[in-house]
Amino acid sequence: MTDSIELISSQKSFGGWHQRYRHRSETLGCDMAFAVYLPPQAEPEAGLPVLYWLSGLTCTDENFMQKAGAQRMAAELGIVIVAPDTSPRGPEVPGDPDGAWDFGLGAGFYVNATQEPWARHYRMHDYVVQELPALIEANFPVSQKRGISGHSMGGHGALICALRNPGRYLSLSAFAPITHPSDCPWGQKALGRFLGEDVAAWREWDAAELLANASERLPILVDQGDRDDFLSVQLKPEALREAAAVVGHPLELRLQPGYDHSYYFIASFIEDHLRHHAAALCG
Amino acid sequence: MTDSIELISSQKSFGGWHQRYRHRSETLGCDMAFAVYLPPQAEPEAGLPVLYWLSGLTCTDENFMQKAGAQRMAAELGIVIVAPDTSPRGPEVPGDPDGAWDFGLGAGFYVNATQEPWARHYRMHDYVVQELPALIEANFPVSQKRGISGHSMGGHGALICALRNPGRYLSLSAFAPITHPSDCPWGQKALGRFLGEDVAAWREWDAAELLANASERLPILVDQGDRDDFLSVQLKPEALREAAAVVGHPLELRLQPGYDHSYYFIASFIEDHLRHHAAALCG
Repeated sequence: MTDSIELISSQKSFGGWHQRYRHRSETLGCDMAFAVYLPPQAEPEAGLPVLYWLSGLTCTDENFMQKAGAQRMAAELGIVIVAPDTSPRGPEVPGDPDGAWDFGLGAGFYVNATQEPWARHYRMHDYVVQELPALIEANFPVSQKRGISGHSMGGHGALICALRNPGRYLSLSAFAPITHPSDCPWGQKALGRFLGEDVAAWREWDAAELLANASERLPILVDQGDRDDFLSVQLKPEALREAAAVVGHPLELRLQPGYDHSYYFIASFIEDHLRHHAAALCG
Repeated sequence: MTDSIELISSQKSFGGWHQRYRHRSETLGCDMAFAVYLPPQAEPEAGLPVLYWLSGLTCTDENFMQKAGAQRMAAELGIVIVAPDTSPRGPEVPGDPDGAWDFGLGAGFYVNATQEPWARHYRMHDYVVQELPALIEANFPVSQKRGISGHSMGGHGALICALRNPGRYLSLSAFAPITHPSDCPWGQKALGRFLGEDVAAWREWDAAELLANASERLPILVDQGDRDDFLSVQLKPEALREAAAVVGHPLELRLQPGYDHSYYFIASFIEDHLRHHAAALCG
């Protein structure tokens, strides 16, 4: 692994800096871009906590930084935010054979693929959990206090990254996550290709399944709009609620009346999520 | 003029609604889209004030609503925000002959063109000042208390719409406005085509010129980043400062260190602008 990162752009935002970087990912076997928000407190040796944000289908590192309005609270609370891309990228990386938007490029589902032709590049779990934090912790004035959150496919990513890696994250939340990918069309398509048709292998990448056997009971905040077009077929928050109830996992699942699946929804509640993370990450 | 508007989309945001509409503009001779943010206070008969936001070159009605993060404060203050498109649109509307992005489609400069082939459709001043407010006031629970703001070309638009129409707006602000279009390349290109080569005709559409003879001394808040790539050649805030100083016009011009021309800059200071408008529009 290399610690070399190349600055793409740097823009002042709420007294801090929104920056984009490019680097070579050994885990993914391609060049990757990521975005970081450094609040005004990010002086050398500041040792700030980091919130990792995982975006949804079709997104890149840019959507959250442009649309969620998170910088204001991150600047107030002194939290660094890191937003990776949603899949490996580049001419060497195979996408969906049919050119669909719900699998492959922009749709890596935060798993480690075991099946060809995906296994070489599609290792977003290890990238998000291991390689990217090592790079961030080597290059920015941050501590090892990490939180994780995300939206839709990225909400699924946040849940499985935290549930599979007890002790690695101090805080966890999600917006409109895919909670039970083994039981929805997006998840079945992705897990079937990345992991193969043996559904037993899918359980290790399914939040509702992982919750049952979690060795750590990290409190989870989930917001879900009740006018989200993907609610009943793809997202299924009741699967997470039921799994949490069985084992007594601390889950605050808020059904927000009138909200849809967009960044207008995320922006409306991002302050609550940042405060949820700050309660575990700061002070 | 028709009061008929067609809803394109509606999304809940900070307890209110972000909506897009389409309508036939008689002023512009084409169909136009606009965006409106209705805060939670927008009940029937609420009589809320309206802030008109004019966007910059290449933008549509969508950029500000997606990226400025204004809805949070608009919801707190009870202000409706209306964002029109930046030019007439459609197959019947001529664009820049060379396909440039700084003139024509997405670049109407908020003037009433007098020259062919622009004069038929490019009447953005009358659209923004007359037709659109009439439509808004007929279809939404708003008062006739109006404020106006904008960015770059839209900052120029906000300044000239207010300065040309004393009494019509109660509040005025701008982000990184083109202050003196008669004396910058963007302005000279646009005014030369829309109004002809007689520069005497340009004065009526130039904020720095209009300020000298303004019959109303509406206080102006302007924010300008000092790392804005367009600062010295296109924007020239010193022209506005000098004009205001000569006549004693109340101008608060803040040079913001480190900030560029982007929506990251706008988002960082939009709360101050909304509070500036609320002081005149609310209560």
